[in-house]
Amino acid sequence: MLPSRACQSVQASAALRSRVARQSYLRKLVKPQDLVHQFKDGQYIGWSGFTGVGYPKETPLALAEHVEANNLQGKLRFSLFVGASTGPEVEERWARNKMIARRSPHQVGKAIAKGINNGEIDFADKHLSMFPQDLTYGYYSLDRKGGENGKMLDWAIVEATEILEDGSIVPGASVGATPEILQSAEKIIIEVNTSLPSFRGLHDIQQSFQPPHRQPYLITKPSDRIGGISVPVDPARVVAIVETNKPDNTGQNAPETADSKRIAEHLIEFFEDEVACGRMPTNLHPLQSGIGNVANSIISGLKESKFERLQVWTEVLQDSFLPLLHSGKLDFATATSIRFSPECFAEFYRDWDKYKEKLLLRPQQTANSPEIIRRLGVIGMNTPLEVDIYAHANSTNALGSRMLNGIGGSADFLRNAKLSVMHTPSSRPSKTDPTGISCIVPFASHVDQSMSRSSGLRIRRLTPYTLAAEHDLDVIVTEQGLADRALVIIEKCAHPDYREQLKEYYDRALYECLKKGAGHEPHMLRNAFKMHVNFEQHGTMKVDRWD
Amino acid sequence: MLPSRACQSVQASAALRSRVARQSYLRKLVKPQDLVHQFKDGQYIGWSGFTGVGYPKETPLALAEHVEANNLQGKLRFSLFVGASTGPEVEERWARNKMIARRSPHQVGKAIAKGINNGEIDFADKHLSMFPQDLTYGYYSLDRKGGENGKMLDWAIVEATEILEDGSIVPGASVGATPEILQSAEKIIIEVNTSLPSFRGLHDIQQSFQPPHRQPYLITKPSDRIGGISVPVDPARVVAIVETNKPDNTGQNAPETADSKRIAEHLIEFFEDEVACGRMPTNLHPLQSGIGNVANSIISGLKESKFERLQVWTEVLQDSFLPLLHSGKLDFATATSIRFSPECFAEFYRDWDKYKEKLLLRPQQTANSPEIIRRLGVIGMNTPLEVDIYAHANSTNALGSRMLNGIGGSADFLRNAKLSVMHTPSSRPSKTDPTGISCIVPFASHVDQSMSRSSGLRIRRLTPYTLAAEHDLDVIVTEQGLADRALVIIEKCAHPDYREQLKEYYDRALYECLKKGAGHEPHMLRNAFKMHVNFEQHGTMKVDRWD
Repeated sequence: MLPSRACQSVQASAALRSRVARQSYLRKLVKPQDLVHQFKDGQYIGWSGFTGVGYPKETPLALAEHVEANNLQGKLRFSLFVGASTGPEVEERWARNKMIARRSPHQVGKAIAKGINNGEIDFADKHLSMFPQDLTYGYYSLDRKGGENGKMLDWAIVEATEILEDGSIVPGASVGATPEILQSAEKIIIEVNTSLPSFRGLHDIQQSFQPPHRQPYLITKPSDRIGGISVPVDPARVVAIVETNKPDNTGQNAPETADSKRIAEHLIEFFEDEVACGRMPTNLHPLQSGIGNVANSIISGLKESKFERLQVWTEVLQDSFLPLLHSGKLDFATATSIRFSPECFAEFYRDWDKYKEKLLLRPQQTANSPEIIRRLGVIGMNTPLEVDIYAHANSTNALGSRMLNGIGGSADFLRNAKLSVMHTPSSRPSKTDPTGISCIVPFASHVDQSMSRSSGLRIRRLTPYTLAAEHDLDVIVTEQGLADRALVIIEKCAHPDYREQLKEYYDRALYECLKKGAGHEPHMLRNAFKMHVNFEQHGTMKVDRWD
Repeated sequence: MLPSRACQSVQASAALRSRVARQSYLRKLVKPQDLVHQFKDGQYIGWSGFTGVGYPKETPLALAEHVEANNLQGKLRFSLFVGASTGPEVEERWARNKMIARRSPHQVGKAIAKGINNGEIDFADKHLSMFPQDLTYGYYSLDRKGGENGKMLDWAIVEATEILEDGSIVPGASVGATPEILQSAEKIIIEVNTSLPSFRGLHDIQQSFQPPHRQPYLITKPSDRIGGISVPVDPARVVAIVETNKPDNTGQNAPETADSKRIAEHLIEFFEDEVACGRMPTNLHPLQSGIGNVANSIISGLKESKFERLQVWTEVLQDSFLPLLHSGKLDFATATSIRFSPECFAEFYRDWDKYKEKLLLRPQQTANSPEIIRRLGVIGMNTPLEVDIYAHANSTNALGSRMLNGIGGSADFLRNAKLSVMHTPSSRPSKTDPTGISCIVPFASHVDQSMSRSSGLRIRRLTPYTLAAEHDLDVIVTEQGLADRALVIIEKCAHPDYREQLKEYYDRALYECLKKGAGHEPHMLRNAFKMHVNFEQHGTMKVDRWD
């Protein structure tokens, strides 16, 4: 299947040979530069990778070099599908080279965000549990006739840390959408990373079936295994093997701050109260935490807490999980990706035998499955851009229009968790005002998720009027405090600089709406985005007055 | 347990005796009037019932009469929990008597909506799949210590069509949240409806377990049974039995219109195309359809279509399902409620033996379960109030603030369905303008759900710029046409009276946002609700110009 220029014999290193049990694959060993001419403008490509680990390095970089060397910027463009984000040295370079025509379902990086927001890149933002199934449904290839062999993708380029005798692959530190991408691709390139240890045994892999042939996930606790240790690959579709020794290009985790620690304290106090009231078991429910310094502070806080025998059912494991595992307070953790800093990866590999019995990586369709999240009663915790006074959260679009990274798995968890938490600083600095951006606003400028436990009377009511909020969130927490009832957000969570302003918005809206008999969620629609517009015009959300 | 005044002997009718196999219950037979003095202001009450069928009639009406006779309006108030809506003659009367302090998770009726929107009734709007579990979690009783026996509710008042020897009950035409309400109540009153046939054998009942003790739902097709035929009841908590012969007070189904038929035609054509493209099997996937005339038109349209061996996995069955069953094109239908008109109920009872093998009623936690909806690949179809040009839908709050009925099960289905459809007329009349309200707006004044298949290129692009939309919806359809890509909504779905206006909003927003590098979902936040504000001020959404 390979054109002649790719058939230059490449000698397999001893390291590579020790990782590839299927001999026929070794005969397909090439240099990545030999592959670039097979890629055509407009093709559909899937990569392995999730949160910047486990992505292919060699072939994408060779393609980028090819574009740069031949001035093909904007002339060799691809529809690119990856479980979530990849390494910045790869994807950002593609974005700068205008090699990305379409992208789904998530991304991280300045150049790709720029391309999305200036209209060059068609980005489809999608719940991470749904992306792999939608790929197999053909929802990303409506305008294709499914390629030569009815496949959705022209190419799958995936990283492995080992290849088994049956041709299946052992991924590295992420699984993501690799099973579905391999299932959907006409041609497969496998990059074997010999700089990492083999992750054999650390994965629990399910293949993806379509309705009406789907079966229940028979998982009732985080450590349950229901699949195999490797991702099946059709050997007939493997066109090349490439060796790489480039590590995952992860940076440092976001450092904890006084505010992130305060948020964690509020939350752990809340958990203690839930346990005391009998609404949670003493070892809590399985935890999901997002990415960032607040997430790290929460996990660090749990290490210092009295909770023991904790379990984790999450999407991605950050640095802070390692000391928690080390402390003995965490019984088991499962995710679709391990995104450690280089130092923590080094520690993890050094103490592999200690950690590997307590970890399991799964496909994102399983890790983020509503079915399992709801069954286990997960505690879901994520960071939004902004939350409104009725607890609708914006996770994706700044000022309603500028896409940041995408919704990721936040809504997979928040919609289905037993306890759904959004944590955010109460304000952020603008260029001219240290608290120029309030993360609590009258009306979220984009709505991805909304609050659920509106009638929880845990916190004293602010007004004689009952107020509702909604569906997806139970608890909002900032460094100022915690609210589990919509309106209380103003009193407990907003930054003091904005508390009166928000209260006045609410009071006026309530007055007007009650007059109209429309007081369930009082709004002044003419003023709903006034804080945002004021920010656009004056660099701060502090408004002079409500009209 | 009963005070002396309730111990007046009541003779059981032959009809009642034929329905109650547990003899000890018959000794608790009372008149509902004898129960009213046991109810105290502030108590928590759960009723059976869902979409206006299967609710208790006698005890609630006796309580209403008691309030009216003794001028107790506003002095005998309850927190009322029902799976969804109940009969208007009961709940509306309670609302008018100011007997409802709190209500969750759904309601239908002018008086109760009025109470919610004027601040008298604390309404918590919740996904119907989540309400029963949240009740058992204690999320609706945060300020209670769980009553005398640690229960969440003081009372459960449930209707049965038969009581089995073990004390368990056979519900009528709905299951709803009855299992969890019975599980959560200190005292239970059972109303046995002898005017209906026994529904024995028509239900598949699961009890509700809490994490970490939950198990998978082992359902892989609509006809699968995984539970018992009756709802378990703790006989020690049954304080009274009441006989009733009042039927469910259902009205007529909303009549089909030319527009609802057009919507159905667009949709069935779309289904045919999906089948032709190999994205759906020839008998489609299990169907969910909401309530209303469009839903009826779709089901009627399917009867005339070439599709056969259809299956239904839905929340509620309306009249139109009966001819579809009769036609032989529908193999099996399951729901949590049958809400027929009186005429269709009469036909259903007459031909009981013919229909009962093709129907199954389940608890709403099962019928609306994300786990099963996603596994089966359900086709979800619901009606919003409005949809915006990026396919965010408002299902609940008119002009952002006035609660109508609640989100119901729409998001349970739309978030998890394989194909998620929102259908709506493109416009509605205002008092002064036959098309004064556009159902397609720049920014939904409340957001409950959002679109997913943004990058489907089925329909030609309007502009050179790529546009994203989002997470929950795949298809928007009005009588004008169908769109499965966000921006195409303007061209295909908007009413002609609004097409240019919406296009201009988009063009201006795009121009401004691209200048700012924020063009993922172009908005002019200062104008986002201008159509709504114009309607509030001038009775039409037709604006003079965009600023």
